Amino acid sequence: MFEKIIANVRQQQPLIHCITNYVTVGDVANILLACGGSPIMADAIEEVEEITAICAGLDVNIGTLNARTIQSMEKAAQRAHTLDHVTVLDPVGAGASRLRTDTAKKLLETSCFQVIRGNMSEIRALAGSAQTTRGVDASLADAVTEENLDGAIAFIQDFQASSQAVIVITGAIDLVAGPTGTYVIRNGHPMMSQITGTGCMLTAVIAAYCAANPDRHTEAAAAAVSAMGLCGERAHEKTLQAHAGTGSFRTYLIDAMSQMDDNTLAEGGKIAFYKKS
Amino acid sequence: MFEKIIANVRQQQPLIHCITNYVTVGDVANILLACGGSPIMADAIEEVEEITAICAGLDVNIGTLNARTIQSMEKAAQRAHTLDHVTVLDPVGAGASRLRTDTAKKLLETSCFQVIRGNMSEIRALAGSAQTTRGVDASLADAVTEENLDGAIAFIQDFQASSQAVIVITGAIDLVAGPTGTYVIRNGHPMMSQITGTGCMLTAVIAAYCAANPDRHTEAAAAAVSAMGLCGERAHEKTLQAHAGTGSFRTYLIDAMSQMDDNTLAEGGKIAFYKKS
Amino acid sequence: MFEKIIANVRQQQPLIHCITNYVTVGDVANILLACGGSPIMADAIEEVEEITAICAGLDVNIGTLNARTIQSMEKAAQRAHTLDHVTVLDPVGAGASRLRTDTAKKLLETSCFQVIRGNMSEIRALAGSAQTTRGVDASLADAVTEENLDGAIAFIQDFQASSQAVIVITGAIDLVAGPTGTYVIRNGHPMMSQITGTGCMLTAVIAAYCAANPDRHTEAAAAAVSAMGLCGERAHEKTLQAHAGTGSFRTYLIDAMSQMDDNTLAEGGKIAFYKKS
Repeated sequence: MFEKIIANVRQQQPLIHCITNYVTVGDVANILLACGGSPIMADAIEEVEEITAICAGLDVNIGTLNARTIQSMEKAAQRAHTLDHVTVLDPVGAGASRLRTDTAKKLLETSCFQVIRGNMSEIRALAGSAQTTRGVDASLADAVTEENLDGAIAFIQDFQASSQAVIVITGAIDLVAGPTGTYVIRNGHPMMSQITGTGCMLTAVIAAYCAANPDRHTEAAAAAVSAMGLCGERAHEKTLQAHAGTGSFRTYLIDAMSQMDDNTLAEGGKIAFYKKS
Repeated sequence: MFEKIIANVRQQQPLIHCITNYVTVGDVANILLACGGSPIMADAIEEVEEITAICAGLDVNIGTLNARTIQSMEKAAQRAHTLDHVTVLDPVGAGASRLRTDTAKKLLETSCFQVIRGNMSEIRALAGSAQTTRGVDASLADAVTEENLDGAIAFIQDFQASSQAVIVITGAIDLVAGPTGTYVIRNGHPMMSQITGTGCMLTAVIAAYCAANPDRHTEAAAAAVSAMGLCGERAHEKTLQAHAGTGSFRTYLIDAMSQMDDNTLAEGGKIAFYKKS
Repeated sequence: MFEKIIANVRQQQPLIHCITNYVTVGDVANILLACGGSPIMADAIEEVEEITAICAGLDVNIGTLNARTIQSMEKAAQRAHTLDHVTVLDPVGAGASRLRTDTAKKLLETSCFQVIRGNMSEIRALAGSAQTTRGVDASLADAVTEENLDGAIAFIQDFQASSQAVIVITGAIDLVAGPTGTYVIRNGHPMMSQITGTGCMLTAVIAAYCAANPDRHTEAAAAAVSAMGLCGERAHEKTLQAHAGTGSFRTYLIDAMSQMDDNTLAEGGKIAFYKKS
């Protein structure tokens, strides 16, 4: 089911058009290269349609959106949708301001994103539920835990059905919902939330994995989530060994992604599937 | 006096709204997380008031200012001031262009920042003295030395009195002036000026330290300066041991901040207090 | 011929005004400091003329250009040209969109850049040849190889003559063409293309090397290319020794630049000169 997903990325080197925030953009570019893809960042409205046309996928991340780039996001997303490129939305901070919530919702309505990745509070803001957003991290009350897992799966499966997109909710436990059911992934390490950008990086990796595996987006997204979690686990081990801190952890995370392959994923991936009821 | 300043940050995890330059923004986000705070970057005028309202502090850094973001800085600063959030200004390059000098001065006038951090030439530009700015580094003639220390303390204390803000001037010797006197801090290492962003990072850390210690901003700022200097010392030691260069130094600096605690500060801090005369 | 090129940079610490993309801007600033220069980033049209006037050189990189920054690029370049500062253009992605190709061409026409650095497909787009651009990397068909070296030298020498600029084309083999001939440089390592920004970083280093060696721009650019390649070689060795990946490679690359000197260049540089026929 996950066979050769990573090999396909490394073989095809899909070019991903990123309209993303300026906080983590360098890490996003580097992890795209590390995972086997290739990045191109372009947000000028005069060129986004041309740029997205030469790419295999589009990553839209609203982390530092503004009036100018919102227009470019819409234009690029509509063009990529027309071309049937994989389109991935990262609604960073949806729920934290009306601008973010409204922009994310409008992008979804007008451009039919194929994949959406956020933390629980961001996805809840998109889905319209009551929620609070604490910065760009999930509110503690919104974290998926073993205790509330059944409810979380029901929620994500509902939103998957209504949005018709693959939905990815990341946290201590990660969920990836497609039309037939939900993958529950238990890889990763808490240190991943002590650096900026692990979410943004994962969204870009999902775009590359899906672009290189167009007939199985749900599985490609789940593989990306699990691979990223495994990178976090390995980076944490290396950080401990080196008696280092979060600066080194960030470097080791990208190291691990550049060394990731299908065997490592098959051996280390902790992925369970819950068939849609 | 400095008791539990860092523990308070790690316990409260203050959310800091940053309107900052795109050069060092990733490092700023990562050091905020490393020091125990939490970053959110947002510069769209449509959302800055809402964003700053959910935060505990505001960090305004004019390093890559433009007409659009200047308006957002003003709006956010006025809202944060109204809410009595701690507001910290980093007048990067003030004195290097009229736009920077005028913007920094106007921000001070309209929004009453509670803390200002710059190098000597930037602070002199704000204070209105004659000065030259060499890029974003202090002119050599403007560096605080053991020889000109008395004059520097008199200068900073004057500007503190007129601005009513906590003033931080960083260099080989760092000064932090509050209403009752000036802390003189002799931590740090020259290698800190061989990477970009140590100033920007420190300003963000000051915001987090002050947000979590609202009743002692001067001491919190001095603790942040000393802690950053200690991180520079440790990062330099590790760089030497590894026969490495400035790339590794930058990583080790963030490592050290993620491992910083009140004990380390108490043992390594070189902080002297000069009571206001 | 290459004597003291690096020593001059470390002694003069030329201040370089960068109008560059937000993807790699932090790495650009850090490698400028590592090579002995000093960076200042400023792209607001209200200040670019003032800022460039206090600098020794200008680095214009169109990697994330937009309508606002294009105007600033033009204004800064014209001012730097008037002041006879060294001006270096990095036409990132020229050929990938009309906006990029047209902007790069217009910048060349109106501002007479003294140095241009790109990969083969970007330089071909500028020179007007038929070409395809795959993201920001050279199309494979456009790479300089031992087999097509003679043709590549003829091409670069022609463009040098028509543009009157020093032309730098980087790839597996690097070419640097000046009025008297072309340097062929065989330093570097393929891992350099597995991180983002090696091209952007090199362009900035070229600006610093040329600014500190105003009477020999061609040799200064060739020295910068060879030095960067040597840094890539050393970084790759260290990455292998550490069983690390591309995250560490990026750190080691900047480490190596901070340790680079004229002796290292003289010993490791693989530079051949082909006199203009």
